Amino acid sequence: MQIAIGLFPGFTALDAIGPYQVFTSLPGAEVVLCAERPGIVADDNGLLRLEVEHTFADVVAPDVLVAPGGVITRRIAQDRGPIVDWIAAAHPHTTYTTSVCTGALLLGAAGLLEGLPATTHWFGYDHLRAQGALPTERRVVIEGKIATAAGVSAGIDLALTVVGELAGPEAAQAIQLGIEYDPEPPYDAGAPSKAAPEIRELVAGFLQQAEDQVMAAPA
Amino acid sequence: MQIAIGLFPGFTALDAIGPYQVFTSLPGAEVVLCAERPGIVADDNGLLRLEVEHTFADVVAPDVLVAPGGVITRRIAQDRGPIVDWIAAAHPHTTYTTSVCTGALLLGAAGLLEGLPATTHWFGYDHLRAQGALPTERRVVIEGKIATAAGVSAGIDLALTVVGELAGPEAAQAIQLGIEYDPEPPYDAGAPSKAAPEIRELVAGFLQQAEDQVMAAPA
Repeated sequence: MQIAIGLFPGFTALDAIGPYQVFTSLPGAEVVLCAERPGIVADDNGLLRLEVEHTFADVVAPDVLVAPGGVITRRIAQDRGPIVDWIAAAHPHTTYTTSVCTGALLLGAAGLLEGLPATTHWFGYDHLRAQGALPTERRVVIEGKIATAAGVSAGIDLALTVVGELAGPEAAQAIQLGIEYDPEPPYDAGAPSKAAPEIRELVAGFLQQAEDQVMAAPA
Repeated sequence: MQIAIGLFPGFTALDAIGPYQVFTSLPGAEVVLCAERPGIVADDNGLLRLEVEHTFADVVAPDVLVAPGGVITRRIAQDRGPIVDWIAAAHPHTTYTTSVCTGALLLGAAGLLEGLPATTHWFGYDHLRAQGALPTERRVVIEGKIATAAGVSAGIDLALTVVGELAGPEAAQAIQLGIEYDPEPPYDAGAPSKAAPEIRELVAGFLQQAEDQVMAAPA
C-alpha cells in the first residue's frame, strides 16, 4: 500500500506530519513524501526545511493521496499549481484521496469536490463553497473515496479513520495507542463554535492578513 | 522569547512537530531547530529528513527547551549523547525545560528528574523509574519548571499548556483555534488503560523489538 503526501513551499507542518506519523506506523505501508521537484521544501514558517527525494511524477498511482494545507493553497488553487494537476491525474487510481485543512482547496481546484460535502480549516469555508463544495463543520468528512479534514491538527483524526477503513479497527487502535493519542487539550477552544468571539476575531484577522499577503504576491 | 527544539537522528517526527506547530504560532516567539551538527537530521523512519541550520552550541540559553523522543533515546541516555550535555547546560537558563514522549529519558540522563513526578510514553515508564523519576500516567506533568508529556501526540497538549503559562490563556486559546485542535479520535484506545489488552500487547511487542535493536546496535 503506497501513501503519497504531496508537498509544496508554504505547506503547514502539522497538516502533513500528523498523517505522516499515523501512516508510517502502519505495517506494510510505503509512505512517500513528494513535491514538484526534488530538493528542499520549506513550510509556511520557512523554518521546517524538508529534503524531498521524490517528485509528483514518481508517484502516479498512490493508494492514498494526502494534500496538506497552508495559506498558500488559495493561491495555488487559483493558479492551478503543479500539485493540482498531480491530484487530478492520480485521483482515478486512488483508494482514498484526502486533504487536511486548506488542502481541500487543492482537491477543489482539481475538480473533485463539486456538489460534495467536505470540510477544511474553518476560515476557509467560503473559499471551499466558491469551488462548488458544500462545507460542513465536521472534523472528518468521508464522501465516497474523498476524505477531507478540518484545520491542521485534524489530519491525525483523518488518518486514523482512513487506516480503520483500509486495515481494520485493530490496526488503527494499535497506531492510536502507539502514538498515545488520548488528547487532553488544556482549553475547550479548538473549534469556531467553542472559542470566545474575541478570540475567533483575533485569529480570523491574523489569517485574513496572511491570506491578503499571499494573494497580493507576484506570481 | 526563544524556543529551542533539540533534534537527533532517530527522533519521532510528531514529538517535535506538535510543539513546533504550537510555538511557531505564538507571536514574538523565535523557534530554533537545533542539533549536534548542521545538516540533515532524519527521523526514526529515515524518511523525514530535516535540514537543520543551528547547532546546540548556537542555543545556549533558550527560554523554552523541547526534547522530543524516539526509541533511540534509551540508547542516547545510556551513552550520554551530545543532546544530554546540551540539556544539562541549558536547563539553568530556561523558563521551562520540556520533553515529549521518551524525550523524558534525555531529561533524566541530564539529571533533572531525580525524585520528581514525570511522564513519558507509557512503554517507557520503567526506564524513567530507573533514572530515579516517579512516572505517572498523566498526559502533561508540570513540576516546577520541568514539563513532561506522554507519548508522541501529547506534545501538542504540553505546548498549549506552556503557552498558557507563559503568554496567558487567550494566546493559547487563539493558537488552539488556529490549529483547530478540537480532537475527535475515531476510537477510544489512545491510553494503555483504555486500549484492549491484546492491542496493548501487540504494540508493546513491537516497541520492545525496536528497542532491542537499538540497544544491540554498535556504538
